[in-house]
Amino acid sequence: MDYYGNQITKLINAFKSLPGIGAKSAGRLAFHIINMPKEEVEAFADTILTAKEKVRCCKCCYTLTDSEICPICADPKRDKTTIMVVENTRDLAAYEKTGKYNGVYHVLHGAISPMLGIGVEDIRLKELIQRLEGDVKEVIVATNSNIEGETTAMYISKLIKPTGIKVTRIASGVPVGGDLEYIDEMTLSRALDGRTEL
Amino acid sequence: MDYYGNQITKLINAFKSLPGIGAKSAGRLAFHIINMPKEEVEAFADTILTAKEKVRCCKCCYTLTDSEICPICADPKRDKTTIMVVENTRDLAAYEKTGKYNGVYHVLHGAISPMLGIGVEDIRLKELIQRLEGDVKEVIVATNSNIEGETTAMYISKLIKPTGIKVTRIASGVPVGGDLEYIDEMTLSRALDGRTEL
Repeated sequence: MDYYGNQITKLINAFKSLPGIGAKSAGRLAFHIINMPKEEVEAFADTILTAKEKVRCCKCCYTLTDSEICPICADPKRDKTTIMVVENTRDLAAYEKTGKYNGVYHVLHGAISPMLGIGVEDIRLKELIQRLEGDVKEVIVATNSNIEGETTAMYISKLIKPTGIKVTRIASGVPVGGDLEYIDEMTLSRALDGRTEL
Repeated sequence: MDYYGNQITKLINAFKSLPGIGAKSAGRLAFHIINMPKEEVEAFADTILTAKEKVRCCKCCYTLTDSEICPICADPKRDKTTIMVVENTRDLAAYEKTGKYNGVYHVLHGAISPMLGIGVEDIRLKELIQRLEGDVKEVIVATNSNIEGETTAMYISKLIKPTGIKVTRIASGVPVGGDLEYIDEMTLSRALDGRTEL
């Protein structure tokens, strides 16, 4: 892409390296940036740098946040006796959006994956066990419903059960609005196993 | 989105303000940035700022570039007697990718649009006329094939014809690989009007 000159090409490539951004979108974004007023571009770059600098893990639940204790852990109205274990901050946000959960979270920052070389020590499991020393009644394991997530859930359940604390797993089954015809066999058989009385 | 804290929310909103980026993509991009090594984030922000600072219009054809004269205008092998008029730098890039054009360009930075309040004075038309004082044999008008692009093409043709310089317009018709059944009536009638002998 010699016809753009160095700086534009560099900017396009920088955007192209981000997830989900192809060559066309990268070009559109690059030219959008170049056509933005200088102050807005500076504010944009500053937002990126500040976020990278300020964002860290909550000391309590390890979610990504910009304060020592995240807003959820700091909220006195949240039920500290129930901990939902999630793989990352975006999964936490997904549950927060439902507005149906009033407990606190524990963010693992990953899931056990022998394939990717991610072991028990690489995720925040030790920190979860430490938290159980407080007054915890239930641990809800909300890791993803894939091999890594299930492996992690099994491991957590084996780890916690001896302590006598209740360990639960979010239900696996047919998504709301889902058409049975298009749903895979694994999900259907899980939905059957998890059936409840009407 | 209180559960993210200020900085992450700001970063997500910054990405959301870019064209073609929705809430989900913005979240993914923000967390990608936060999980990137610090040096890479700094390099990314620097690329944005440097591009904004260094990129300007080529003194000759007004395309966006980082040198006084863009690589195309500076190339002695390009035919300076043929000028292709395009609306913006990305349209120039689109024609460069074909590898079929050996002339130079003129970038208008827009098209005449009474709807958007863009008049003759708001695009680089005066500069185009000034360039014609040199040794120019043909002006190819490659503005978009929409109302604004056609209006601009008509205006340019009226402006240049009295000088005796040849003015041409790129062909409008059925795109290669296009299925007639799905092509709009306007395009089909243009393709008919522009038919050539076999």
